[in-house]
Amino acid sequence: MSKIYIIGIGPGSKDYLTQIAIKTTEKSDVVIGSKRALDLFDNLHDKIEFNVKNLHENLEESVNLAVNGKTVSLLSTGDPGFSGLLKPILKIAKEKNFSVNNIEVIPAVSSLQLASAKVKIPWDDANIMTFHGRENKGEILETIDNGKVTITLPSKSVKDMAEFLIKSGVNPERKVIICERLSYENERILESTLNNVLDSDFTYMCIMVIF
Amino acid sequence: MSKIYIIGIGPGSKDYLTQIAIKTTEKSDVVIGSKRALDLFDNLHDKIEFNVKNLHENLEESVNLAVNGKTVSLLSTGDPGFSGLLKPILKIAKEKNFSVNNIEVIPAVSSLQLASAKVKIPWDDANIMTFHGRENKGEILETIDNGKVTITLPSKSVKDMAEFLIKSGVNPERKVIICERLSYENERILESTLNNVLDSDFTYMCIMVIF
Repeated sequence: MSKIYIIGIGPGSKDYLTQIAIKTTEKSDVVIGSKRALDLFDNLHDKIEFNVKNLHENLEESVNLAVNGKTVSLLSTGDPGFSGLLKPILKIAKEKNFSVNNIEVIPAVSSLQLASAKVKIPWDDANIMTFHGRENKGEILETIDNGKVTITLPSKSVKDMAEFLIKSGVNPERKVIICERLSYENERILESTLNNVLDSDFTYMCIMVIF
Repeated sequence: MSKIYIIGIGPGSKDYLTQIAIKTTEKSDVVIGSKRALDLFDNLHDKIEFNVKNLHENLEESVNLAVNGKTVSLLSTGDPGFSGLLKPILKIAKEKNFSVNNIEVIPAVSSLQLASAKVKIPWDDANIMTFHGRENKGEILETIDNGKVTITLPSKSVKDMAEFLIKSGVNPERKVIICERLSYENERILESTLNNVLDSDFTYMCIMVIF
């Protein structure tokens, strides 16, 4: 059947896979995802691996396969609806005249939710923002001083975000918690200040909690 | 071990249970939750059922059991960090001097995320708000006309929310999508207008998407 399932896999470890994610991959003709994502599933008969470099090409290929009658599962880290693959797939589907009715989204836990859980701050009381792959850093300044904690997927890096905030006049001593590689064995949660993370070498896989 | 796990079970069906939710209930001395939540898990040896009427009493009992050395799993519909049980448990723990270090939160998919998936609107581009059990309805007026879609857990009911919005001057013809009992067999997704849902009899288990 001509169908694309955009499947959230959660923050990264097998722990956060849902039953429906597993069942859906099993009934698909082909499963497409990063190596890390594909490795979470057993017994995938037909799979296509992508990486950062060939991501767009493989997203197009996902839609092409569905156009040609295949049932495709596309694996998205975190929740496809939060800095995930829903947005680019909607764009490509439109370009290729692939009906949005043949797209189904399976949500999952975003790393932002896991960060909220780790620091035990309900995210319905926080400023929730993503700057991954966006050019809208300025938006954070509108809410950073509204009295709520800000939980964010930083721009290029933690360092880049901290630099921007300090340059924009935010107090360098402001407390931050960096949650890195959440749910993985080498997960790291570090309390610091904006100033102190300026020289940091955190990976891209970080959530930044700003107090 | 003296510990409380606040475990998100997702929107309601077994489909959205995570591996870590299942594993954690299995290693607990006692599992506490609504009948609906408890029914999702097999082989629970010791369980306590709560309902809306005795909820607070049972949350206190959860903390008491942990104070007395038990490992307690407390089941929270949706994500404990979004209109879930994290907030009330933090309050009770404080009252009882139970260390927050002995509380662990296991996030899950909120019904709000499933609504975003169903209508295929990324929630990082939406206004995300909850009015469940809150008296802050006025807050929605600050963002309702900012050009973004609003995805919300309504106040008392869909009807109540629609009434409030129309009274506050929002166009009665504004498009809404009501997502009811998401993930359940009798799930219902209905496109309508604010005006047309005034006479509706939706259950409490609704997400309201306002365009």
